[in-house]
Amino acid sequence: MKSKFVVIEGLEGAGKTTARDTVASVLRERYINDIVFTREPGGTPLAEKLRDLFKRGVGNEMPTIKAEVLMLYAARVQLVETVIKPALERGAWVVGDRHDLSSQTYQGSGRGTDPQLMLSLRDAVLGSFRPDLTIYLDLPPLIGLQRAKARGELDRIEQELLPFFIRTRARYLALAAQDESIVTLDATQPLEQVTASIRACVSLWLQQQEGV
Amino acid sequence: MKSKFVVIEGLEGAGKTTARDTVASVLRERYINDIVFTREPGGTPLAEKLRDLFKRGVGNEMPTIKAEVLMLYAARVQLVETVIKPALERGAWVVGDRHDLSSQTYQGSGRGTDPQLMLSLRDAVLGSFRPDLTIYLDLPPLIGLQRAKARGELDRIEQELLPFFIRTRARYLALAAQDESIVTLDATQPLEQVTASIRACVSLWLQQQEGV
Repeated sequence: MKSKFVVIEGLEGAGKTTARDTVASVLRERYINDIVFTREPGGTPLAEKLRDLFKRGVGNEMPTIKAEVLMLYAARVQLVETVIKPALERGAWVVGDRHDLSSQTYQGSGRGTDPQLMLSLRDAVLGSFRPDLTIYLDLPPLIGLQRAKARGELDRIEQELLPFFIRTRARYLALAAQDESIVTLDATQPLEQVTASIRACVSLWLQQQEGV
Repeated sequence: MKSKFVVIEGLEGAGKTTARDTVASVLRERYINDIVFTREPGGTPLAEKLRDLFKRGVGNEMPTIKAEVLMLYAARVQLVETVIKPALERGAWVVGDRHDLSSQTYQGSGRGTDPQLMLSLRDAVLGSFRPDLTIYLDLPPLIGLQRAKARGELDRIEQELLPFFIRTRARYLALAAQDESIVTLDATQPLEQVTASIRACVSLWLQQQEGV
């Protein structure tokens, strides 16, 4: 089977880290051991630097929304061209913690950038490059926020809080409904059940890929 | 007269700094004293940081061409939204050392990014915002490079040398020919003559603006 790019998406507190480990363990059971893990924004020294600038700004200066979106895409295209595509080409699998869908939802809806501009930017920058499978861990924002708060992990983006996350979740659900490469899983279930759902989903998908 | 945005463009060694001072002195003779100077890429702490990242990279990692273009546009939109537009709105004039035309020419031609993508990106990011007047200081690349070398100022971009600058100059000339807000001046003349041409050009343009 040709190597693939699998992405975990969801709001803060949805359980992306556990999901990533679960995906990797399913792959390893199938003797797929060459797995590259990415996280976005970030994943290369330059992209991490851009992530840092985008989250903290410089001194008192924060990026405008448009500058933020362009920095995100600079980090993404750097990661895609220098890490993800070369990994796939040499036969490694790539498991990503977030990818373009996060920008479409957080910036393209939550933070109020024109969703059409976000889609145009995606196409202009990434061409037809897309994940082979995206697992979207869906949960009501209030639950995710409470989980994230318990970890002491709220940053600027997270502080924009509930109305922002409600719009972001709505955009996730809308985009997932239009795209059959995105699987929506209920992340409000107990951890064991979410993990079992991810295992089942990835196993089934792998069988389908082998059948193709 | 409403305040305006005047930009100096040209290859390295074309005499942009002297030109900027000449424009400012013509404005001051007309009692226009509130002048904001910008340089691109850069001009705000965040934009300067992006300029630095774009020129030097991080460790051994340099941005890909697409990442470079997106970082440039992030820096530009940050400068336009937080410095240039607010200055114009309060009635200050803005004199810029480079603006979007540099990206259209250096990246959109010299460095081989699709020129149409560059124009689309400009429109998507900046909307209809454009300089009121651009003075393009034209000279054969060989002369500009020799001048820049004499100052010991060659950086990565400049080291790509002659074929790159020949393509960049051709794009400057082509875009200037299509846009009546861009005035092309012969920068191979002795400095005094170039300065006299700039003075004449700006004075005439100001009279036209007053007449409108």
